[in-house]
Amino acid sequence: MREDVLARGDRLPDSDPPIALDAMGGDHAPHEIVAGAVHAVRERGIPIVLVGPPRVLYEALTDHDAAKEIPIVRAEEAIAMDEGALASLRRPRSSLAVACHLVRRGDASAVVSAGSTAAIVTTGRLRLKGLPGVLRPAIAVALPTLPTPTVLLDAGANAEVKPEMMVQFAHLGTAYAETAHGIEAPRVALLTIGSEAEKGNKLVKRAHELLVAAPGIRFTGNIEGHDLLTGVADVIVTDGFTGNVALKTMEGAVRYAFAELKDSVSDSRLARFGALMQRARLRELAQRLDSEAYGGAVLLGLNGTVVIAHGASKAPAVSAACELAVTLSRRGTVPRIGERVASTHRPHRLW
Amino acid sequence: MREDVLARGDRLPDSDPPIALDAMGGDHAPHEIVAGAVHAVRERGIPIVLVGPPRVLYEALTDHDAAKEIPIVRAEEAIAMDEGALASLRRPRSSLAVACHLVRRGDASAVVSAGSTAAIVTTGRLRLKGLPGVLRPAIAVALPTLPTPTVLLDAGANAEVKPEMMVQFAHLGTAYAETAHGIEAPRVALLTIGSEAEKGNKLVKRAHELLVAAPGIRFTGNIEGHDLLTGVADVIVTDGFTGNVALKTMEGAVRYAFAELKDSVSDSRLARFGALMQRARLRELAQRLDSEAYGGAVLLGLNGTVVIAHGASKAPAVSAACELAVTLSRRGTVPRIGERVASTHRPHRLW
Repeated sequence: MREDVLARGDRLPDSDPPIALDAMGGDHAPHEIVAGAVHAVRERGIPIVLVGPPRVLYEALTDHDAAKEIPIVRAEEAIAMDEGALASLRRPRSSLAVACHLVRRGDASAVVSAGSTAAIVTTGRLRLKGLPGVLRPAIAVALPTLPTPTVLLDAGANAEVKPEMMVQFAHLGTAYAETAHGIEAPRVALLTIGSEAEKGNKLVKRAHELLVAAPGIRFTGNIEGHDLLTGVADVIVTDGFTGNVALKTMEGAVRYAFAELKDSVSDSRLARFGALMQRARLRELAQRLDSEAYGGAVLLGLNGTVVIAHGASKAPAVSAACELAVTLSRRGTVPRIGERVASTHRPHRLW
Repeated sequence: MREDVLARGDRLPDSDPPIALDAMGGDHAPHEIVAGAVHAVRERGIPIVLVGPPRVLYEALTDHDAAKEIPIVRAEEAIAMDEGALASLRRPRSSLAVACHLVRRGDASAVVSAGSTAAIVTTGRLRLKGLPGVLRPAIAVALPTLPTPTVLLDAGANAEVKPEMMVQFAHLGTAYAETAHGIEAPRVALLTIGSEAEKGNKLVKRAHELLVAAPGIRFTGNIEGHDLLTGVADVIVTDGFTGNVALKTMEGAVRYAFAELKDSVSDSRLARFGALMQRARLRELAQRLDSEAYGGAVLLGLNGTVVIAHGASKAPAVSAACELAVTLSRRGTVPRIGERVASTHRPHRLW
């Protein structure tokens, strides 16, 4: 079955099956999800199939006059936002599970869901399976650095990791940066609390040693929290606990800066005019940094493309997540990860 | 000896010995340190003793016409910024070690240093010793929340911790918030990756259980990275690895927001005027968030007050760090920590 899906992945650019969009995941499901699907189809030309309860989705599509444009695949069950990993086991016919099955069967090229992250990670592992050799899938987020984004992973799939997994995260992130961002030989850095090799906890010290020796990884050394947004690395590797805290801290800090600024300049009309312009800019910035909202986070290491849209996604974010899913599947991120991970078992063959 | 220093600590408000300022620690030592001392003495009325090579310091003081105002205690050696813990062992007569000795002998009320954090932690542990019962000292940073600051600890003293230490960090932080910020029954939260009790890695799950059961701690539950600057807690407990990454990520994110904004509005003079005002505000904000610069970080759990000024501190930051040191020693943060930690050995006595 695995070989089957991989082979399909390779054929993808020719046939371009639709994106399987979990219509029932997210705080604003199904209406904003359906609206996002309509936007993705009409404005971006992305083929979409909506997965969820047909009657509800048909009505929602009719509101957009789009019932004939977007096919529906039936799934009567859903996983609520406050449900975690266990719900994935209990509901094998949830909209999310069915979306994963479509990818597994080759009827869809990628899954997009704004559902609970824990449910997506568990359902993805269960229904799509890992790529051969991958120890653990990881959540990758593209931070808005310039000129190209920086991939941070793991952003929260694995609270507890082993040093060997962090080397694999480096491969997953490198494949992402190579394919999605077109970066040759991406620079990989390790997030810790000092730039010297001996700085950090046991986990990162060991991961540092392994990364130095890892073939196929362009390891440039340790970085600290300051460097997440400076573009000094193309891929930043960390464990899912630290990565999640760092990502949310970043969002919180930008939101704080925004709120502080909003209260500030308001004593003259001239100043206010300038302030308004700045504020729009800062809001745009806050949105760019707003966790998985910028296109979405990606669950890497599974036998299929999975994009995790922010739980609070409205139509534009859903549409952007579909765009990201298309990009990743067209550019072959999943097969590239497969090659990289396979190569680590026979390091002298490919490098 | 310990009892001796503690007893002195209790007498502090009456006698007010000077602050022992490590004149040779920091990127801009000794000139900015001396300038900061002069500022602290003249503008804030803080008694200071400078510790370092007398000839050099005398000359620097003379530049400010302050040679008669500020006494010097001799220490011919110094620990460079790029030296770590080992240098503390090798140089028992460094300016930092001598400053600690002054506090230990009761000749100074607190140490202030802008030297390397690793050297300050090691020298402090070696020369001042821990308070009885304290497992590990921790670095506490006061985040600029309103109306009162939020104490984040450990911000980097311990990369590897045990759950029991995190309960002690809660006591250290509570004592800090009670004494320095005047908060009664400070709310203590645990930094992790989900608000539910079962979220996080093994360390925080166990720390959560211990904090729920800890007498004398008002534990309000888990928080995530978003919440560091929202003021939902008075004390935020974390391990030194995560805390350091979070603190530096916060600084980096604000610096990023600032840089982005600087590039933005510049197309009309009106807008530029507003932008300038905003920019000043954002710069002030960036400085407020600039790591230990806002008054400095504090090394808690030792038998004496130790303030760690930012390595890049210039005169105003040095002066602010001296102010913080005076506040902590006058308000009895160290004895309060001693009471709290002692009480955990006989929980039915004080609570």
